[in-house]
Amino acid sequence: MCDIAAWHDCTVAVRLRAKHATWENAIIRAVTSIDVARAAGVSQSAVSRAFSPGSSISARTKQKVLAAAASLGYRPNRIPAIMLSGRSFMVGVVIGGLENPFYATALERLATALRESGLQVLLMHVDDALTLDSALDRLVSYRIDAIVTSLAIGSKAVVQALSQLRLPVVCFNSSHVGPWISTVNSNNHGAGLVAARLLGRHGMQRPLWLAGPSRNSASRARGRGFCQGVRDTGIPSARLVRVQGNDTYDSGYDAIARLQKQGIRPDAIFSSNDMMACGAIDALRECMGLHCPHDVAIMGYDNIPQAAWRSYDLTSFDQQTDQMVARAMQLLDEALGTQDGPVSRTCIVDAQLIERGSTRAAR
Amino acid sequence: MCDIAAWHDCTVAVRLRAKHATWENAIIRAVTSIDVARAAGVSQSAVSRAFSPGSSISARTKQKVLAAAASLGYRPNRIPAIMLSGRSFMVGVVIGGLENPFYATALERLATALRESGLQVLLMHVDDALTLDSALDRLVSYRIDAIVTSLAIGSKAVVQALSQLRLPVVCFNSSHVGPWISTVNSNNHGAGLVAARLLGRHGMQRPLWLAGPSRNSASRARGRGFCQGVRDTGIPSARLVRVQGNDTYDSGYDAIARLQKQGIRPDAIFSSNDMMACGAIDALRECMGLHCPHDVAIMGYDNIPQAAWRSYDLTSFDQQTDQMVARAMQLLDEALGTQDGPVSRTCIVDAQLIERGSTRAAR
Repeated sequence: MCDIAAWHDCTVAVRLRAKHATWENAIIRAVTSIDVARAAGVSQSAVSRAFSPGSSISARTKQKVLAAAASLGYRPNRIPAIMLSGRSFMVGVVIGGLENPFYATALERLATALRESGLQVLLMHVDDALTLDSALDRLVSYRIDAIVTSLAIGSKAVVQALSQLRLPVVCFNSSHVGPWISTVNSNNHGAGLVAARLLGRHGMQRPLWLAGPSRNSASRARGRGFCQGVRDTGIPSARLVRVQGNDTYDSGYDAIARLQKQGIRPDAIFSSNDMMACGAIDALRECMGLHCPHDVAIMGYDNIPQAAWRSYDLTSFDQQTDQMVARAMQLLDEALGTQDGPVSRTCIVDAQLIERGSTRAAR
Repeated sequence: MCDIAAWHDCTVAVRLRAKHATWENAIIRAVTSIDVARAAGVSQSAVSRAFSPGSSISARTKQKVLAAAASLGYRPNRIPAIMLSGRSFMVGVVIGGLENPFYATALERLATALRESGLQVLLMHVDDALTLDSALDRLVSYRIDAIVTSLAIGSKAVVQALSQLRLPVVCFNSSHVGPWISTVNSNNHGAGLVAARLLGRHGMQRPLWLAGPSRNSASRARGRGFCQGVRDTGIPSARLVRVQGNDTYDSGYDAIARLQKQGIRPDAIFSSNDMMACGAIDALRECMGLHCPHDVAIMGYDNIPQAAWRSYDLTSFDQQTDQMVARAMQLLDEALGTQDGPVSRTCIVDAQLIERGSTRAAR
C-alpha cells in the first residue's frame, strides 16, 4: 500500500539517511511539511490542505500554517504529486535561434501563457531541429506533460521521434504532421499573395524574392504565395528573381551585394524575414546607391522591433504571436484533456500587414 | 523502510489505481522499467543499471535493454531519483526583457552551459524583478537545486526573498549581495572610464551621458565611471549633460528629441546600452540633422547584433557573455558542492571595447 502518508515517511527516511551523504546540506536545509505542522501546532494534513487551492480548511488554521511556513521558509513540494498523478504540470519548450528577435518575443509570450495556465516551462535550447532527438531524452525523463517547439521542423525523422514520445506536441510554422503532433501556422502563403499585390500597386516591374533556408517550410510557403501573386499582377514568372539567404541580416546584405555584381537591380523586394530585409536595405544603399522606398520598395516578415526603427521603417507582416500562442494553448488543453488517444490538428492564423515607409512612397 | 524497490512498487500501484482517474491516459501510456525488463527478459534492476552511467552491467545485457527500450519507446524516469537524492538537477532560470537582444543571447548561452553540465533549465519569465517573489514559490515547489537570474535586482526586499530560499542563487549585474547570493558583474565602472578616454581622443567638448533606468545598478556604475573619466580629460563635471532613458530604442530617440527642443547639441555620447544608442543615432539625424561620427561620436554597451548593422555601425562594449556564463557556472558548482553553508561571492569580468564607425572618424 502506498499513499500520501507513506510518501511523506519516505521523505523523512531519506532526510535522515542523507545526513551521511555528499548532498547532505542540499537536503537537510529543505524544510518539510512536518516542520511546518509542528511549528503551527496542526496536523501534517492541515499543512497539505493549506497549500492546495480549494481544499477544506478553516481560515484560522490556514493562517496559522501560512505564518509558520513563512517564518520557516517552507515551500510545498510538488514532486510527490508528480509521482502520484503522473502529471508534472511541466511543459518542455524547445527553442533555438533567439538571435532573431521574433523568436525571443514568441518565447516570452509562450512562457507567460503557460504560467497563466498553471504550467511550468522546462526549457531546452538546441542549435538546430536536427539535434532535437538527443535533447528529448533528457526532457522526457522529467515526466513532462507535453512539448511545445518553435523550431522549424523540416525533417521527417524528427517528426517520427516526436510522435514516438506519445506526448502531446505543439509546433509553430511546421509543415510535417504526425500522430500526437499539432501545429499552429501563420498564413504564410496568403501573406505572399498580399505582398505581391501591395508591391504591384507601387509599380513593381523587377520583383525579387529573398528566400530563407530551403528547409524552412514557412519560407517556402511565403515564396509560393509571392510567386503566384506576381503572376496575378501580369508579370511573367521568368521575370521574378529568386535569391536565397539563411534568415540572418548578413545573408540579406550579401544577397544584394551578389546581385550588384551580376548587374541585377530589383525595384520591389519581398524578404522571407525582417532580419534579411534590414540587411538588404543597407546593401541597396551601400552597394547599389539605391534608397528605400524611392528606388526600391521592400517588405519583410515577423514585424520584429527593428522593423520600426527609423533607419529601416520596414513594412512587414506581424504573425500575431498573441493569437498564435492562444491557439497553441487551446491545442495543448485539448490534447491534455482528451481520453481518445493522440490529437493531431493544424490551425492557421492570418498575419497582419503593417505598412511603413519602405513601401509608402508613390514612385 | 523505503528503498528504490519500494518506490518502484509505488509507481506500479499508482499506475493501477490511476486507471480510474481523470488523467488515466496520461499515465497508462507511459512505459515503465518493468515493461522493458519483461520485453528484454532481464531483471528490473538491470534496466535501471543500463540507464545509469558507470553502473556494472554486461555489454550484452545493456544492449538487450536498450533495444527493448527503443522498441517500446521507454525513457528513464528521473523523478524517483529526485525524491531520494534531494537533487533534481534542475536550475530555475529567471529572465525578463528578452526584447533586448543582449538578454536573449545571454539566455541561449546560459541554457547551453547548463545543459553541458548535466543541468536542466526550469524557466520563469517575469516582467520585472519586483514580481519575482511570487514566481519563486512555484519554481521552488519543483525542488530546483539553484537559481540563476539575469534580472537587474535593485530591491532589497527581493534579495531578502532570494536569501530566504536557502538555495544557491547566481545573479548577473546585480549590486545587492546577501547570504546564498553570488553575482557576476561586467566591469561597468571601468568601461565608463574607457568610454570617456576614447571620446576624449575624438575631441569631445560637449559630452552626454544617456543613462538607463535608475534602478539599474549596472547603468549607474557605467555613469559614475564615465563622469569620472570626463573629469579626467579636463572637462568640468558641470559640462556633462545627463539624460535618462529606460533601455529601449524609443527612449533613446525621445531623449535626443527632447534635447533638440532645449537647444542642446552634444558632440560625444555614451549610452548605457546599444538599444538606446541606436535610437539616439536615428534621432540625431532626423531631429538635429547631425550624423555619426562626423558630427557626433557615440558609443553603446552590450554589443548586440544590431550594433554591427551598417545603419548604426556602433562602437560598443561586449560584456563577454561566454566568460560571464563560465564564471556563473563556477560559482554554481562551488555553491552546490560545498558543505560549509551559504556561499556569497562577486566576480567581475572586463568588457571588451569593440570599435566601429560611430567613433572612428577623425574630426
